[in-house]
Amino acid sequence: MTGIVDKAGAIRLGDLAERIGAKVKGNPDVEILGVGPLREALPSHLSFLADGRYLPELMESRAAAFIVAPSFENIDRNLLVCANPYLAMALAAQRFAEPPHLPAGIDGSAHVGEGCELASDVSVGPLALVGSGCRIGRGTRIYGGAIVGSDVQIGEDCLIYPRAVIQNGCRIGSRVIIHSGAVIGSDGFGFAPDERGRHVKIPQVGMVQIDDDVEIGANSTIDRATFGKTWIQRGTKIDNLVMIGHNVVVGEDSILVAQVGISGSTRVGSHVVLAGQAGISGHLEIGDGVRIGAKSGVHTSLPAGDFSGIPAMPHKEWAKTMAVMRRLPQLREELRGLRAKVRELEDALRGE
Amino acid sequence: MTGIVDKAGAIRLGDLAERIGAKVKGNPDVEILGVGPLREALPSHLSFLADGRYLPELMESRAAAFIVAPSFENIDRNLLVCANPYLAMALAAQRFAEPPHLPAGIDGSAHVGEGCELASDVSVGPLALVGSGCRIGRGTRIYGGAIVGSDVQIGEDCLIYPRAVIQNGCRIGSRVIIHSGAVIGSDGFGFAPDERGRHVKIPQVGMVQIDDDVEIGANSTIDRATFGKTWIQRGTKIDNLVMIGHNVVVGEDSILVAQVGISGSTRVGSHVVLAGQAGISGHLEIGDGVRIGAKSGVHTSLPAGDFSGIPAMPHKEWAKTMAVMRRLPQLREELRGLRAKVRELEDALRGE
Amino acid sequence: MTGIVDKAGAIRLGDLAERIGAKVKGNPDVEILGVGPLREALPSHLSFLADGRYLPELMESRAAAFIVAPSFENIDRNLLVCANPYLAMALAAQRFAEPPHLPAGIDGSAHVGEGCELASDVSVGPLALVGSGCRIGRGTRIYGGAIVGSDVQIGEDCLIYPRAVIQNGCRIGSRVIIHSGAVIGSDGFGFAPDERGRHVKIPQVGMVQIDDDVEIGANSTIDRATFGKTWIQRGTKIDNLVMIGHNVVVGEDSILVAQVGISGSTRVGSHVVLAGQAGISGHLEIGDGVRIGAKSGVHTSLPAGDFSGIPAMPHKEWAKTMAVMRRLPQLREELRGLRAKVRELEDALRGE
Repeated sequence: MTGIVDKAGAIRLGDLAERIGAKVKGNPDVEILGVGPLREALPSHLSFLADGRYLPELMESRAAAFIVAPSFENIDRNLLVCANPYLAMALAAQRFAEPPHLPAGIDGSAHVGEGCELASDVSVGPLALVGSGCRIGRGTRIYGGAIVGSDVQIGEDCLIYPRAVIQNGCRIGSRVIIHSGAVIGSDGFGFAPDERGRHVKIPQVGMVQIDDDVEIGANSTIDRATFGKTWIQRGTKIDNLVMIGHNVVVGEDSILVAQVGISGSTRVGSHVVLAGQAGISGHLEIGDGVRIGAKSGVHTSLPAGDFSGIPAMPHKEWAKTMAVMRRLPQLREELRGLRAKVRELEDALRGE
Repeated sequence: MTGIVDKAGAIRLGDLAERIGAKVKGNPDVEILGVGPLREALPSHLSFLADGRYLPELMESRAAAFIVAPSFENIDRNLLVCANPYLAMALAAQRFAEPPHLPAGIDGSAHVGEGCELASDVSVGPLALVGSGCRIGRGTRIYGGAIVGSDVQIGEDCLIYPRAVIQNGCRIGSRVIIHSGAVIGSDGFGFAPDERGRHVKIPQVGMVQIDDDVEIGANSTIDRATFGKTWIQRGTKIDNLVMIGHNVVVGEDSILVAQVGISGSTRVGSHVVLAGQAGISGHLEIGDGVRIGAKSGVHTSLPAGDFSGIPAMPHKEWAKTMAVMRRLPQLREELRGLRAKVRELEDALRGE
Repeated sequence: MTGIVDKAGAIRLGDLAERIGAKVKGNPDVEILGVGPLREALPSHLSFLADGRYLPELMESRAAAFIVAPSFENIDRNLLVCANPYLAMALAAQRFAEPPHLPAGIDGSAHVGEGCELASDVSVGPLALVGSGCRIGRGTRIYGGAIVGSDVQIGEDCLIYPRAVIQNGCRIGSRVIIHSGAVIGSDGFGFAPDERGRHVKIPQVGMVQIDDDVEIGANSTIDRATFGKTWIQRGTKIDNLVMIGHNVVVGEDSILVAQVGISGSTRVGSHVVLAGQAGISGHLEIGDGVRIGAKSGVHTSLPAGDFSGIPAMPHKEWAKTMAVMRRLPQLREELRGLRAKVRELEDALRGE
């Protein structure tokens, strides 16, 4: 259970090499049953060298073989040599790790509404709810206690974890993973003040569209659009407890770390990284490849570059500014000292 | 589904005008079937002009009629003219949008405890849980998978969304909306340290009271009081992932944006705005109408005004301070330059 | 219901004194039925004096007896005198307060998988889910709608609140409290970029271990380890909406206030306090007894001390720095004034 992945059966080292795009050094016929870190790997495991400092641990590891970068290809163990060992390790682990088991078919205690089209091998776990008029593609697993509203479309091979909620009318692509407690399609936060300062609800009648290969973390929330859609595009990964407001668009292959918040109608580009607890105001444009530091607060559109701080400024500028800020009390003392000297000089000049 | 609201049937433009307090220009007999933004509206829809810049879009829109401010009342289309088009749009959309359908009555798979008094048209969805001794008013919908504890009182026309949790003894007013994943009445965070530095739990035996017309966002949490009550007053709107500590009181018509946190026993006034990710320490008083900027940290009571920053200061002061802070490296250079000059002056004077 | 705790029956004041380690002044035979604050206590209640300022309220309180510090032992009421009244109050309240009732045994609507070993008095509430192969110790309550995965171990006398989720393979100690909406064992946030900048998922095959006497707040999330375990040690208390990344270790008796985030592989010591909305980057070491101020951002390891700010610095230094920062616009003016004077001096000297 702890770091041992061996559910999918053995594979020859040579076959695994082919699968993950690596070169074998040593015995290609060794059988691999799982993956583990250097210290914990079993004799049937593949392990990996992430950093040269751990070489002594590799030499003492019981593992059957190791993924290494080309610079380590002369180590006298069975090796899978490849340019990107970190990626290779991910791919190798995927060969062995499997999502939690769930039998195909609809559990007797689940509720599935009328007019749904479920591919034959869809699984719906115990006490899960699926509303009416849904279409769910093959291989998708709705785990126990998950809730899917009405008129929802879900693609193939998705994992909808226990207690995730997808609300009415949302569209989910293929290979999407939605973790426990995530809420997709809650109402956007929209109100119009009346003459007494009371907040009149603006009905939120849009939806949320989540494209292929997106992952949504535990207890994150993505609000439905006022009109139209809130849209998370292909390959973007969202961590836990992230808040995405109504009508936000997030481009492809972006990374949103835990507890990030994005206010309504902001458009975030592709390959963007928002570090933990960062916040972005509404109605902004964040360009492709922009990176925002942890805890930063963004109040203006940012076409390109790295940014940090509240309010956010270019990251290098921020680093310099923070270095000075830490010495503010000292700067104040220097300023005081200088003022005293200037007074002395003035007196000296006047005294002449 | 995307931006189309047409569930409640057609209404004459003249009747709609009366309903939302607007004046008709053009044909009052046109039938309206829904509401949509300028570009997406269907020929049976009402649309709206939020900003004069979109006038060309209005002229090309297929919509049957438009809500506009008085300054646009000469546009040659069917118009609903009113002083506050944004509010009028909210009211018009409310005419068409309906909360997710749920049949009246208790679903066969729901659990309702003993001694509950449910008004005749209350609906309790599939796999929902209602504890014993609850009183629920007419028109309230407990959606599938929602959980209501024991001895809970809920007023009329509330929406308790899938997987919301209301715990034992809490009291909810009328027309309250609680979104998915919100937790009302979890234990406050209270411990007394013993002589070894271990944290002994202080039982949290109070409750949460939520008054009429409050909305609570997805995955927000409101802790029960140690004694007495945590209290959210009429008309306050709370966004997603907000944390409200034990014994907090929030006044009427306040706005708490996503990921805000309020620590225990703090009292927040009416018509207060707390922007996203702001945090307020415990045992403070925040006066009526106070506005706190995004990501601000409040450590002292604030009777009135606008505040920003960590720690929070008056907003205008903060804006000036941040403008200087951005130039700190430059200020340090100026200080160094000045110091050098003063040394030169000193040398010059001494040299005389 | 509001501040009244009287479920466990009456107890003599003298017996209660013994139980909580206090000395009786007055009548030890008075019967106590519950606990309440000074103003709300009933004549059968024990109350407490937390602060001398409330002495007038004590004198007017209807309560039968009062917990006070030794400096107040001459008050002419029935008293329980002890060195730490706050702790004594917590212990006394525990005598009366009971967790929400749940009958022992498995509710007919709950699902319990194959191969589980449940102690005879375990309770599993309505519509709760327990996977296969779980072991659950005596006295533990799985409330209605809670979800426990497969191969989970849970100790004795735990409270797993409605809609908490504990995922496959996690291990929970004894007397652990997990509040509604908390997710234990969601996937860690780990991806390896491929040559196109796409994020390839690193399977998260470790687990979460939670030791005895830990409390986890509502809607908090604790991710499972990539390999090995994410580990929360004995006695640590975690508030609501907290995020704990994969492979994090938190020591004993630490306090993590609401909306705190800890990134992957960071090790936090014992008796650490992380105030609300603080964030800690990944792969750091936070020493025993360290205290981090609200909203702080920690980017470096911190062996000992108190820290605040973004980025975090020693707390006293931060307080001084912030005091100067508030006067930055004034400092800039002083700098300008000084520059003007220096120019005058230069001119005066040159003019000679």
